[in-house]
Parts: sequence; structure tokens; C-alpha cells
Amino acid sequence: MGYHESMNDDRPNEPPVARDGWYIACEARDLRDRPRATTLFGVPLVLFRGADGRPAALLDRCPHRNVPLSLGRCRNGELECGYHGWRFDGRGECTFVPGLAEQRASAGRRAPGHAACDSDGFVWIWGRPDSEPTAEPFRFPLLNERGYTTVRRPVDTEASLLDTAENALDVPHTAYLHGGLFRSASGPRNEVEVVIRRWADRVEAEYIGEPRPSGIAGRFLAPGGGTVVHLDRFVLPSVVQVEYQLGSVTHFCISAALTPLAERRTRMWAVISFRLPVPGALVKPVLEPLAMRIFGQDAAMLKEQSANLARFGGEDYKSTEADVLGPAVHRLLRRAASGENGDAGTPAGDPVVRRMRLLT
Amino acid sequence: MGYHESMNDDRPNEPPVARDGWYIACEARDLRDRPRATTLFGVPLVLFRGADGRPAALLDRCPHRNVPLSLGRCRNGELECGYHGWRFDGRGECTFVPGLAEQRASAGRRAPGHAACDSDGFVWIWGRPDSEPTAEPFRFPLLNERGYTTVRRPVDTEASLLDTAENALDVPHTAYLHGGLFRSASGPRNEVEVVIRRWADRVEAEYIGEPRPSGIAGRFLAPGGGTVVHLDRFVLPSVVQVEYQLGSVTHFCISAALTPLAERRTRMWAVISFRLPVPGALVKPVLEPLAMRIFGQDAAMLKEQSANLARFGGEDYKSTEADVLGPAVHRLLRRAASGENGDAGTPAGDPVVRRMRLLT
Amino acid sequence: MGYHESMNDDRPNEPPVARDGWYIACEARDLRDRPRATTLFGVPLVLFRGADGRPAALLDRCPHRNVPLSLGRCRNGELECGYHGWRFDGRGECTFVPGLAEQRASAGRRAPGHAACDSDGFVWIWGRPDSEPTAEPFRFPLLNERGYTTVRRPVDTEASLLDTAENALDVPHTAYLHGGLFRSASGPRNEVEVVIRRWADRVEAEYIGEPRPSGIAGRFLAPGGGTVVHLDRFVLPSVVQVEYQLGSVTHFCISAALTPLAERRTRMWAVISFRLPVPGALVKPVLEPLAMRIFGQDAAMLKEQSANLARFGGEDYKSTEADVLGPAVHRLLRRAASGENGDAGTPAGDPVVRRMRLLT
Repeated sequence: MGYHESMNDDRPNEPPVARDGWYIACEARDLRDRPRATTLFGVPLVLFRGADGRPAALLDRCPHRNVPLSLGRCRNGELECGYHGWRFDGRGECTFVPGLAEQRASAGRRAPGHAACDSDGFVWIWGRPDSEPTAEPFRFPLLNERGYTTVRRPVDTEASLLDTAENALDVPHTAYLHGGLFRSASGPRNEVEVVIRRWADRVEAEYIGEPRPSGIAGRFLAPGGGTVVHLDRFVLPSVVQVEYQLGSVTHFCISAALTPLAERRTRMWAVISFRLPVPGALVKPVLEPLAMRIFGQDAAMLKEQSANLARFGGEDYKSTEADVLGPAVHRLLRRAASGENGDAGTPAGDPVVRRMRLLT
Repeated sequence: MGYHESMNDDRPNEPPVARDGWYIACEARDLRDRPRATTLFGVPLVLFRGADGRPAALLDRCPHRNVPLSLGRCRNGELECGYHGWRFDGRGECTFVPGLAEQRASAGRRAPGHAACDSDGFVWIWGRPDSEPTAEPFRFPLLNERGYTTVRRPVDTEASLLDTAENALDVPHTAYLHGGLFRSASGPRNEVEVVIRRWADRVEAEYIGEPRPSGIAGRFLAPGGGTVVHLDRFVLPSVVQVEYQLGSVTHFCISAALTPLAERRTRMWAVISFRLPVPGALVKPVLEPLAMRIFGQDAAMLKEQSANLARFGGEDYKSTEADVLGPAVHRLLRRAASGENGDAGTPAGDPVVRRMRLLT
Repeated sequence: MGYHESMNDDRPNEPPVARDGWYIACEARDLRDRPRATTLFGVPLVLFRGADGRPAALLDRCPHRNVPLSLGRCRNGELECGYHGWRFDGRGECTFVPGLAEQRASAGRRAPGHAACDSDGFVWIWGRPDSEPTAEPFRFPLLNERGYTTVRRPVDTEASLLDTAENALDVPHTAYLHGGLFRSASGPRNEVEVVIRRWADRVEAEYIGEPRPSGIAGRFLAPGGGTVVHLDRFVLPSVVQVEYQLGSVTHFCISAALTPLAERRTRMWAVISFRLPVPGALVKPVLEPLAMRIFGQDAAMLKEQSANLARFGGEDYKSTEADVLGPAVHRLLRRAASGENGDAGTPAGDPVVRRMRLLT
């Protein structure tokens, strides 16, 4: 029992986040000919599209009198401040100062920026300002895959990226917080085997031996019978994935790229792709309200958690072996936050593997 | 005049409170089969009844992921967290962690608690966490006394325990803040003698020579004539008492045990017992609105006082001899807060006595 | 171009203000027989009229129990606290403590105060508490001047005195923030000459070569033709002035004495005196809505600026030569705040003069 006792976290008050990574700022279609305000790590940013149509992200503060640039307007691929009309290009260079008889450049007039790009229908920004990305954005699986239906949905929590990710990947709370919806705290429990695999940039848990849903639901989801595959995964800097496969047809893959808007405010950009024995269009009206109800319960609890952390002046978490992924996600984020690396096999290489048993 | 100049208080910003003492948490009938959230000294606590029906008070923070335990539910005399289902007994020991294949105790999973008990129809908690009470709760006098009517009423102030207690025991403000209601700032003043008696844990002022109310009120309250007895009293950690006796029948005793919910938020658990020449049931409809109006004026002024203390960054009070009990209450609380004791005779022994004159 | 680069301000977080100067507290007619609460530099003050009818300003905190004195009432030229009835004269001396058998003075019971006086229909208070004024209040020009109409209007900003003053005196922003209302960002630009004159206590900019409004407006405002005179001015501690003269008749003089209610909350006491070829009563219904719309746009932007300064933890302004008066106002305020003086000619002496060109 020494292992999970040593997992007892002595977390500092600031939740860890990785600066070197891509985060979704908005859906691509929502960034057109007007500037758009957002925040990352609590820092106000302004998004706009430059002359080439590519997204740009600058600090949302005019270097002149510090008003939000997002109050201005786009003008031929440049951003014009709404107060005195200073103009900036996509790299944040000030290209025009109204009133001046002679326009001369000045380094002091530059607005710092973040690298930005379009990918999978989202605008992504690199977390560290004024620096070159060292990776590609996460690609969502199964988009446009034949036979799959995809739903996109941004959902917000008033919680840190870490607490939000841990909640999304946690199994035991489902029997309590969502009691009756898909797991139950009473009734017979199942002992399942869990295989945990850790890489340098990710961690996953595979649950082996979970029973197929009984009754009509089971026959509906897996008419041909077969096994259940259940995988939960976290990928740096901020992607959570939950995957279910029942039999040969039914397949759910829920991916969410989490954006830390502020220390305790997170936007989950959820992309849910699924394949079922019946057409997706018939299932959506049932699945969506159920998913929204579950998420609503999670969001309410995460908000209570954040409020209590504020009341008590920070976190003091105690973990057990039943916290299958949370402490590992914490370690990945803490190391990424401090710039360290390599607690396990490389992303391409073999993972560190551990097995345990859990009652579900 | 050196005395009250030396009373000029150089109060630190944190109002003093005694940790070692009993405070009312709620009425006994309001704690049944659901957990109940409250605060003491600004610290969130959860109340519930253990397997034996006795009250328990724990820190309102699950040791696991720090959510409020008060969001959970009672289950066979244990408190079950609403997030992941951890369970706690009345001493705060964690008795069950869902999901774990093997249940083993761990000291780190304990929720700190306060001693709690039922007395006089209230649930009381001991102010210092994880420690043994060294005294009994205050007992309200005249409860169930033949011929007396008793009214209980919790009332809240947005002020420190000290400012609330001083207001409740202060005489001169009644002519200004409650002008016209029971004393008047204009008209002839009466010079009365005040006897102040101090013990180690309490202080009282007896006002001698106050005139009987004139006219109909006087004949109504003291039909047989006689003297007026008026006593104001403070008892550590937080009880204020105001007692009036007119003639041989009329007797009011207002006791309030003050609970410091937070630094500047106090709940007064008032218990008013009285005996009058006419049945109490006839008098209540007149007395209650009058008492509520007076209290409303006090609460409004205490809120303004707290707001001004916040604006000015703390207290800078100047006292005179007309502040009959306030400075003494302050000293009692400050000494109790710092763990000192014994500025005057013991509770059982002879008090230190001082006499003065006051215009009322 | 070295000049305006050296103007790049490294402003500390607290905006500078002059303590030694007169500030308007309220209109004279609004201070009669009731006390009136206000703030200066964020400090709560209470205004009332003493026995001689002259205004008095005290710290809005009773020395006794620190409640706002403004909750009390005026009583024969003294201010009586609404809680315990302590009374104060116009110098803040405590003259009466209810309840005391013997009234004796005590220095500790004094409420600190500010010098106050009536002038030009306003109540003014000296910025430094408990000190003698070393100057006279600013006198508004053209009041009661024959042929002039005067309008008074207090307007509030959620911005520092400095940011409010700079906004009021700034020319380039008018083409952007007020685009279309009186200057335009598109269309042909005019190059004008600017003469900047600095004295020890003030700075002014004269704009030479501005074109007369074209079309009907020009014929209306200056039917006899003639030149345009445009002067912008700042006078310590807090007066901004904008003066326009078109031809021989049309003359606008807008003076505003700014009161720093708090660090980022300023009240502009605007006094607008004007003379036009047509009666003022006919022009007011047109001018007032226009002026209010322009001011509304300024106030909204100043609020956004303050909010962004709060988000980013302070100011980081970059200036150019197009910031004609802002940096000079900043220097005057900073020197006045630190008690320095004399960066240019004396008020009575010759100014330091600089010339530049600006596109408007």
C-alpha cells in the first residue's frame, strides 16, 4: 500500500499547466473579419485573421494606452486600436500611428503575440508567447471516418485544467455523482483489472473485464455480443480521451482538448465521434441530453470544489489507488510546467506498465 | 480622567475571539438526517448526527478532493461524500473508500473535527478543533420556569463578535440610534450610579437609580410600584445578558450566545424569557415588532461600522467612561484569545468592583 | 525622434496626484443642513456647514466607534454622530460626549479635517488633511461674462485623474473614438503646427492652421470668416481647459476641475461657457446631446482602459510625439505628487516653448 500513499499530493496553490503546447482558442468559423477576445492562463488575448487569412493572437493590450485591442477593428489584415487608431500586423508590429508627421518603427510599440494556426476546424494558439512551436496540434481521431457521427461541443468548467481532466477520466465518482445514470453505488460490484501505461507525454488506463450492459441496452449496443474495450487517456498538454468499444460495431470516442482560460476556468472543446448499430441521427436526440446532464453534474461539483479550494486557501488532496489516472496526470502536468521531461518511455517508445484491480 | 483615556484601544485588525469555548451551531431540531453546513471563525464546518444520534462537526472539506462534505448525505450514522463516496464517522475517521479492492485505514484520510453536544435545545461546538472541551456550555436561565414566557430568535449581524456584544450591552447609543423608542436624547437626563463588577470570565454593570417608566407604561409594567433593577452582563466566550426587573412581577432576561461565523459576521442566538403582570401571549405581538425594529437599527449601524472599518483598513476606537462595558469585554476577549487569564477575581470568587456615574 | 522615445513612461502603479491643491467636493447649493458623504483620493470624507455657514470637511469616521459621521445630523452648526451622539465642530473638535457626567476635551477624540471654502458656486476642499492651504482655488473664466451662456455638468469616469485629463486634452483619438462626430479618420488630413508652452504649474498646446469647418457649419459658426484659435491646457492640480475661437464671435471655453474620488474614479466638474452668433438658449438643445454622446464614448473607453490596467496589474504606456500633452501632464502631476517643482518657467514668468507638426 506504499504506492498510493506516496501519491498523496502536496500541491502548490497554482495548478500546473504546460506552456509549451497548443490550445484551442475558438472554432475556426467564429474568427472572421472582427477581432475576438479570449484568455489563456488568465492573460487577455485578441485573435484576428492577418492579410493571408491566417489567425493571429496578440496580447489584448495596446502598447500605447493599454486599452483592449479587441475593442478595435480589422482593417486590411491589420488590427486597428479603437482608441487612437494604432495599427498592428499579425506579428504584433505597429505599422501606423495616426497624427505623426513621420512614421518610424519603434520596438517599444510592438504587441507581444502567440503563434497561431488552423487545424481540424479550430484555431489553436501556442501557449508560450513570442516563441516558436516545437510540435503540431493534437489531431482528433475519426473525424470524417466513414460510418461515424461527430458532435462538437464546447463546455466550460470553473475549475483548473488538472481538476477538470481528472474528473473527466475518473471512474469511481460515476457511481456517486451520477448515481443511477450509468453506474450504481449499490447493487453488486464488479472487480475489473486495470492496465496503466505511461509514456513521456501521455498516460492511459485500460479496463479489462467490464461487463456488457445487460438487458435491452446491451442487445441494442452490441447485438452480436462480444467483449467490452474501455480506455481512458490523457495526452499533454491538455487532451482527455475516453473510448468505449462494445462488440464489433458500437464505438464511442470522446476527445476533449482543454483550454486553461484562467487558473480555475477551463473550456473543454469536446469532439465526440461514435458508430452505432443504428443511424447516428436517431441516437443524437437521446445521447445529447444524457451527456449534458452528466456534464452538468460534473461542472456543478467542480465549481463547488474550486469554491472550497478558495475558502481553504489551496489544495490538500489525498489519493488512493482508486484514483487511477489523476495523480499521473498531475505528474505529467507538473513536469511539463517545470520544463522537465521523461518520467517514462518516449512517446514513440515502450510505455511503463502497471496493473491493478478496481471495484466498479 | 486618566482611566478612560488609558482605555483608548489600540486594537489589532483581527477582532479577538476565544477559541476555548462552546458556540451554538444551530437549533437541535434543525439537525436531523441531512448534513448541515455552517462556519465558525470563517472556517466551513459540516454538522451531522452520528450513529448514536449525537451531533458531530467536521471540517467541511473531503480529504480526498476537497469538496464540501455537506454536499453529501448521511448513511447509517456516517457522512458520505457526494463526489466519490468516501465515508466518515462522527470522529472524522474515513471508514470506506469506494473502488479499493482492499480497505485499509490511513491517518491522512481523516477529516479534522470539533467536539459537539446538545444542550438547552441547541447544538453546540467547541471552538478549538481536535481538542477536548474544558468546560460546559452556557445554560440559559429561566427556561421552563413557571410564569415565564420564552422566545428564541437567531439574528445576524455583519459585525465582529466584539462590536456586536458591545452594541448589545451599550446604554448611551439607545438615546440616539433608537431615539424615541425607549430612551430620548432630548428631555431631562437622569444621573444614575453604575456598579461594575469584573470576574475572570465575565463582567457586569448594575445601573442604580433608573426611574420607573412614567405614565401608563409604568403602571402597566409595575402596578405595585417598586424599584428598578437593571443589569448588563458579558460571559466568556460570547454570552451577552440584559436583565430588567420592575417591581415584584415584571422581569425581562434577554440572553444571547453569539457565534462568530466569520471575522465580521456574527449570529446572535437570543433567548428572551419574561414575566409580566399580563399573560405573555398577549404581550408577544407588541414586544416582537418593537424588538425587531430596535435590532434592525442596531444591525444596520453595525453593518455601516464594519464597512467603514474595511474602508479604513481596521479599527481605531477611542473610549470614554460612558463606554461602560465595551472596553472590559474587549480585554476579556483579548486575554481569552491569547490564552491568558485572571485579570480579576475567579468566576467563583469575589469580583473587582468599580463605581461611576452616568447620565441616561 | 529621441524625444518622444524618452517620453515612454515607466509609470508606477499608483497614478500621481497632487495633495497640495484645491478640489471640488460638490456644488455649493447641494450642501445645506444635512451632512454629505464624499471621497477624495479614496478616503471617505463628510461635508457639512459649520455655525458660520462655511463648509467643513472631516474624515468620515467617528473617532469613537468608527462609524461614518455622514450617517449623523447637523445640529446648530455641529455634526452629531448617529450612533452614540458624539458632536464635532467644523475643525473636527469633539464638543460633547453623551452620558459623561463631566465633559472634558481630549485630543484623541478629534476628527481630522480638510480646509474647505466656497468659490464660484462650488465647495472646494484642500487635498492635504490638517494643513493650511497655500493657494486659492482655480477661478472659472467667463462666468457672468456678458454675451456668454454657461452650462455646469458633473461627469464621472472610472479612470485615474491622469488618464481622464489626458483623454480630455488629446486630439488624435477624436478621429477614431468619435469618428464621424467631429473629426474623421478617413478623408484628407491637415498638417497643423503645434506650439507647446510649459510653466511650473501648467502646460498648454496651441494648434495653428486648423481649417474652419466647411459648409453650413462654418458659415453658421463664423459668418464673418476669420481664423481658428484652438488651445488645450492643463493647470495643476487638476484643471483641463479646451478653448476654441472661430472668427470674431464664436467662442467656446470648456473648463473642468477634476476631483480624484479614488485612484481610478474621477469626477469632472465641467463648466462650459460659450458665445455664438445665435442665442445660447437655441444652441443648448443641440450641443448638450452631442457633448453627452462624445463624453459617453470617452467614459466607456476610459473604463475599458482601467479594467485592462487592473487585468494586467498596472500601466505600461508607450508615447509618441502625437501625444501632445499627456506626457507633460504626467510629469507635472508626478512632480507635484513628490513635492518637487519648477521644471519650467514660473507661473508668472516666461514658459518653455517647443514647436512640432501634427496631422489632424
